[in-house]
Amino acid sequence: MIRYHIPAGFRAAAVRSGIKPSGSPDLALFVASNPCAAAGVFTTNRIAAAPVRWDRRIVPSESIMGVAINAGNANAATGDEGLRNAQATAETLAAKIGCDPDQILVASTGIIGRQLPMDKLTAGVGAAFDRLTTDQESFFDAAHAILTTDTRIKVASRGLTLDGRAINLLGIAKGAAMMGPKMATMLAFVLTDAAVASADLDAILRASVDESFHCISVEGHTSTNDTVLLLASGAAGGSRLAGESLASFAASVADLCRELARMIPDDGEGATHLITIDVSGCRTREDARAIAKTVAESALVKTAIAGGDPNWGRIVSAAGYAGVDFDESELSLKLNGFPLYHNGAPLPFDADAVSNSIKSERETKIELAINQGPAAARFWTCDLTAEYVHINADYTT
Amino acid sequence: MIRYHIPAGFRAAAVRSGIKPSGSPDLALFVASNPCAAAGVFTTNRIAAAPVRWDRRIVPSESIMGVAINAGNANAATGDEGLRNAQATAETLAAKIGCDPDQILVASTGIIGRQLPMDKLTAGVGAAFDRLTTDQESFFDAAHAILTTDTRIKVASRGLTLDGRAINLLGIAKGAAMMGPKMATMLAFVLTDAAVASADLDAILRASVDESFHCISVEGHTSTNDTVLLLASGAAGGSRLAGESLASFAASVADLCRELARMIPDDGEGATHLITIDVSGCRTREDARAIAKTVAESALVKTAIAGGDPNWGRIVSAAGYAGVDFDESELSLKLNGFPLYHNGAPLPFDADAVSNSIKSERETKIELAINQGPAAARFWTCDLTAEYVHINADYTT
Repeated sequence: MIRYHIPAGFRAAAVRSGIKPSGSPDLALFVASNPCAAAGVFTTNRIAAAPVRWDRRIVPSESIMGVAINAGNANAATGDEGLRNAQATAETLAAKIGCDPDQILVASTGIIGRQLPMDKLTAGVGAAFDRLTTDQESFFDAAHAILTTDTRIKVASRGLTLDGRAINLLGIAKGAAMMGPKMATMLAFVLTDAAVASADLDAILRASVDESFHCISVEGHTSTNDTVLLLASGAAGGSRLAGESLASFAASVADLCRELARMIPDDGEGATHLITIDVSGCRTREDARAIAKTVAESALVKTAIAGGDPNWGRIVSAAGYAGVDFDESELSLKLNGFPLYHNGAPLPFDADAVSNSIKSERETKIELAINQGPAAARFWTCDLTAEYVHINADYTT
Repeated sequence: MIRYHIPAGFRAAAVRSGIKPSGSPDLALFVASNPCAAAGVFTTNRIAAAPVRWDRRIVPSESIMGVAINAGNANAATGDEGLRNAQATAETLAAKIGCDPDQILVASTGIIGRQLPMDKLTAGVGAAFDRLTTDQESFFDAAHAILTTDTRIKVASRGLTLDGRAINLLGIAKGAAMMGPKMATMLAFVLTDAAVASADLDAILRASVDESFHCISVEGHTSTNDTVLLLASGAAGGSRLAGESLASFAASVADLCRELARMIPDDGEGATHLITIDVSGCRTREDARAIAKTVAESALVKTAIAGGDPNWGRIVSAAGYAGVDFDESELSLKLNGFPLYHNGAPLPFDADAVSNSIKSERETKIELAINQGPAAARFWTCDLTAEYVHINADYTT
């Protein structure tokens, strides 16, 4: 059994509240022993789910006591009733803990447009509260309960020593597509026992998300519920991190977020390939990410990889409509290390060798370069298979 | 047999040049009796195909004598050799006609990144030139020869009377996806015998394309080769259109372009539904189109329609990430006329009735409204089926 770095100052639990028709675990709690510093990054969708609207009012905060998460129902596009239900969820957990509802964060994932079954949810919060432990297994239970169409749990951890103290970082995520009949979205929770001010957590989380959860795509449909929370209990002791220690902590959070983010397209609905796209030679990181994202979201690129087809014209043409100003003669492409296109002209290549390299590996690497500057970006997506269409078309809600 | 309005002053022809491995017709010519006024609108892709780069130098023009089009090879991402081949194609047709190469426009569609087989192309232009006629059947032959993955030809025409003269408008288009193993892209040619100045043609064509070919999507992958040309022979006689006559002519061109544009997603690869998206109540037409385009390009919306699934959360959430600033409480949705979401709150509805209406009709209508202003846009797309994935993944190049 692999031991993960479980941060002190937190307990976790999960139960089957009955929200998921399948009867799988669907309600998870993280509860702190003492008020935590916390930060959050949320969806940019104008149709933000009720839990997102609740949390946004609260973070960054120095006094978070718990997080309640349900899967199976997104509580999104649910109007005022949805907002009242998000608040009622926070109130239920707050009453159990004996704190103010504004010390509770909530998150939901699942079908859009249906009201939460509050009887099940309220009973589930109570039942989960009674099961809270500090055991690794409870955190894994929580990682299971937040899944929707995911085929596996997504957990990563780091241990580091800062200012002479052992610091633990644990990250738990879910996501396999936007949402749908079997529901999905992107949620992540990063817990640490380091002592960090909420303003620092906020800056660290924004920078980390920018190069991790903001650099992944399954089909490009931005969820209404995307939520990433970072909670620091300070239970490791010592005064708040600053200077080089804070920088080391920030680097570990960023690294952990990248590891978690990559797991999402790797578990994308119907996916048979994880595709890593590196774009370099750009004026700005935004330019590099725009090109990478456009390639990542092209159905023609994704179906070509699914078919093991070295149809590189689809890749360079996707780069061409990313909205970044460059000349064709600046663009070069490698696919799985094979140079296919250089400075705007096609190169001779062994199509069978490239096709075999795609077919024989789970990961496909696309490298695009232009000649405008030093900025680069890395982006992850998955291929598009008939199974994705079956999952999202054939099983009706 | 339906009679189309074939404009005077043009001849057409098509042949099998051997570029398409299938041996289907793949080379078409339109040749004018006298120099024509002409305008063009082209792809915004930075990787513009060689024929697009050739044509852009030339239009608007008052002296176009012919158009040479090949299918089966896009002549895109082909570097300097590709540009020389586009020029050589123009030179070949110009030599046959006895005009300057700059009086010839070219267009290509098909696989990206391979050099044109110039022996076949040159022989094909010669053979087609010898077959040119003014018959309706020759224009239909040309409409066939420009197809790639399309399952049917796309032709529309209009007859109108302006300044006491009979005016004919004929439009021919192709397109079923960006491109790929069996190749595609979007090309359209509109021919008229009206007398119109090239500057007027240019303005009319830009406005028409803006609400037709710029409002369609199959999978959102902007081709390297998209080309729409409008040629006016003036063979109907009379002086150049102006004032109200010119406005009537412009309205007919716009109407014809909408009819042709709609045929493209209706024939989208693997499509079982044409989806029409109307967005209203926006501050600007750009806002309305941004929302419509984002909904049209959501794989989750497109798979839901393929499955006859009234999963309206996918539609409103796609509207939410279109980049248009609105509040959830402003948004309303109808699907096939059924109100599902009103001012940010879900409405009770008969899911079976909505599902049956999707399954029983070829066309699905999505209506979204916000409350910010008078602007609206209409957009067309198709559903996403496993067959699309098979076409683009399973048949390797």
